[in-house]
Amino acid sequence: MTDDPNIASTMITNDPWFGSYAQRAETMRASEIRALFAVANRPEVVSLAGGMPFLGRMPFDQLADELSQMLKSQGEQAWQYGSAQGDPHLREDVLPIMALESITDAQPDDVVIVNGSQSGLDLITRIMCNPGDVVLAEAPNYVGALGVFQSFQVDVVNVMMDADGLIPQAFEEAIIAQRKLGKCVKMLYTVPNFHNPAGVTMSLERRPQVLEIARKYHVLILEDNPYGLLGFDGQTYPALRSMDAENVVYLSSFSKIIAPGMRVAWMVAPPGIRQKLVLANESAILCPSNMSQMTISTYLDNFDWQAQIRDYRGMYRERRDAMDSALRECLPSCSWNKPEGGFYIWLKIPDGLNAKEMLPRAITAKVAYVSGTAFYNDGQGKDHMRLSFCYPTPERITEGVHRLAGVIDRELETVKLFGSPEHEGRHNKDGQ
Amino acid sequence: MTDDPNIASTMITNDPWFGSYAQRAETMRASEIRALFAVANRPEVVSLAGGMPFLGRMPFDQLADELSQMLKSQGEQAWQYGSAQGDPHLREDVLPIMALESITDAQPDDVVIVNGSQSGLDLITRIMCNPGDVVLAEAPNYVGALGVFQSFQVDVVNVMMDADGLIPQAFEEAIIAQRKLGKCVKMLYTVPNFHNPAGVTMSLERRPQVLEIARKYHVLILEDNPYGLLGFDGQTYPALRSMDAENVVYLSSFSKIIAPGMRVAWMVAPPGIRQKLVLANESAILCPSNMSQMTISTYLDNFDWQAQIRDYRGMYRERRDAMDSALRECLPSCSWNKPEGGFYIWLKIPDGLNAKEMLPRAITAKVAYVSGTAFYNDGQGKDHMRLSFCYPTPERITEGVHRLAGVIDRELETVKLFGSPEHEGRHNKDGQ
Repeated sequence: MTDDPNIASTMITNDPWFGSYAQRAETMRASEIRALFAVANRPEVVSLAGGMPFLGRMPFDQLADELSQMLKSQGEQAWQYGSAQGDPHLREDVLPIMALESITDAQPDDVVIVNGSQSGLDLITRIMCNPGDVVLAEAPNYVGALGVFQSFQVDVVNVMMDADGLIPQAFEEAIIAQRKLGKCVKMLYTVPNFHNPAGVTMSLERRPQVLEIARKYHVLILEDNPYGLLGFDGQTYPALRSMDAENVVYLSSFSKIIAPGMRVAWMVAPPGIRQKLVLANESAILCPSNMSQMTISTYLDNFDWQAQIRDYRGMYRERRDAMDSALRECLPSCSWNKPEGGFYIWLKIPDGLNAKEMLPRAITAKVAYVSGTAFYNDGQGKDHMRLSFCYPTPERITEGVHRLAGVIDRELETVKLFGSPEHEGRHNKDGQ
Repeated sequence: MTDDPNIASTMITNDPWFGSYAQRAETMRASEIRALFAVANRPEVVSLAGGMPFLGRMPFDQLADELSQMLKSQGEQAWQYGSAQGDPHLREDVLPIMALESITDAQPDDVVIVNGSQSGLDLITRIMCNPGDVVLAEAPNYVGALGVFQSFQVDVVNVMMDADGLIPQAFEEAIIAQRKLGKCVKMLYTVPNFHNPAGVTMSLERRPQVLEIARKYHVLILEDNPYGLLGFDGQTYPALRSMDAENVVYLSSFSKIIAPGMRVAWMVAPPGIRQKLVLANESAILCPSNMSQMTISTYLDNFDWQAQIRDYRGMYRERRDAMDSALRECLPSCSWNKPEGGFYIWLKIPDGLNAKEMLPRAITAKVAYVSGTAFYNDGQGKDHMRLSFCYPTPERITEGVHRLAGVIDRELETVKLFGSPEHEGRHNKDGQ
């Protein structure tokens, strides 16, 4: 999430093109929380809402000098159009990164460079899914992926997860149930490592089980792995792609291990899909930015990126610990996981409270979060919120949780005095 | 066109996902000319095929130094996620550029920064067009736009153009004819200035006429203007958008006036459409690259970009003249326009020759072009080729045309001896 304050949430009135838009655009609406974000981004507010990596420890000044040199020696390529599949040098560079998660058989030709993970999600959905097709996905789910699936009029069907990640049996049952309904199940979308927002990791036992089910029913797996190298104890897990090259499309990104400002991510796909991804990439953006790609390569070639990732791990662990401690200290009425990597804590708030309705009061109290409802496509999630510990310092995190505790305490008092403020809606049967 | 040699044109055989793709992906195929491009990009071949700008005269070494400074002082923003609508500073920067073409009423909030013009075409089609909707377009037509329309399963209906650009009467007749067929006509796609590939410019008389027809029938105009500032005599034309803010979506790019390596373009749209474009941009790529946008702003803020554009005009005029002279000298059997700006000459070859079938023999003779068939969606164009004069030096252009003349002369001899080598196909009724 970019937590973009610049998108007006106001509805456009008297739009002369109302009624002329494509069906897929009719459900596109400015998020209701955007107006709040404009306020949430004020410096006096502690934002536990955003997913921005903290970049203060990157060697950016030295990189700026290296870039200047690179542009002087390789400018003819850097400033020019490039290949729709991505720069061959960068496609080579990603191989040792993936090897850290046991992907050792990929070749540069299997790799497609995309304009950030978001574009990768867009391209794979574009080539695989007709309107009405089903994508199975862990719930709660990455909000950016939900947006893509919605924009292609795909039905997202939730599959339950627990502390060990996606539940294989629930995956298989969902396929069977959807097929009984006559639906075409195209993909499973999974974030196996340090899930956004749930913070959990798919266990090693479950990975081959999930793959076996995918093969059995010929369902493609879309493995989205932006956080896999950010395990706080340096632990990594073998990617699903490392166990199956034919049924997995792998997606990873430089946004969290280097920086998001270049918008560079990459995919690995089996040949038929890879070829269509390249054509879709060309149709969508012509080619990824050479300058962005060569900036990434300049960093990888000239700096100790593995040491930098180790440094990130320690920094994010410290922030996770700060949040976990503060929560234990002042929000014993809530429950949460203690994630072993990634950026997020998924907080269950006390019964009777509504994370979405409470948000304006939290921002008034100068703390921001994302309501759990943002991570479901079916109205669930008001009993949860996502707290990010990636960007603020440990001190700010502690302060933010203290403020949040004050808000929650006041909400609980209000509920006690006046009953639950929430509007009771229908209950959903699917999902967790 | 990137003339990307890195996309294999080989068909993937035994694809286990065959039959699983989205309908929109089924027609996506690697271009038949890609394999040839891999050969055409060899240094011994004079490529008159590509649309790459010549960048040798840009002050890139100084810009590299400025960039290094910018990254050191504004790195916190440059390396981070940005706004889905685009950096406010750059949205301000584009206003004086557009003022050169009489767009004086646009505000930064009307502007959306996109990841190259290609992405702009993708986004507007995504929000406006259902499968089966009609986009009217000048024929021949920019191949990248045809690819986008095809990928959204849009019916492209050709509208005739002549030396004065799109013919208004043909535009109106096409709307009426398509509506009679029960089709939903959503947009007119036009490149009014120095058209790719046709090289022509819509006359000043026709511009208000085209707008009036668009208003009368409530058809949106998509004005694609990458070459507008590259008139060889410094002439500019008032943009369609300058005459109508409600019915025109304007698209322009830095690729030809600065450099394409950053992939930065911009759109101006009426409020309702602009809001959906921002949401579509977020769904497609999350946000444009801050680093790319700030690179553009660094250039605009620190260099005399108007002087640079004047320099480009002189350089491209010299190349246009070299091509025109060489054609007059050695290809009197052909006919062509003499474009007053832009990158391309649209060459009519002698009757009986087939530009598509001739291409392998041209590449053997070490000269490359794009067959006219690439610019039609209906098999027309074999009697034309697009010759680019943007990238090669005047000497190389002259040499390339000489080689081409040799090829065409040999083809004509073969036709004389053995009859036309072309496979006679059905004749198309629509289009020019």
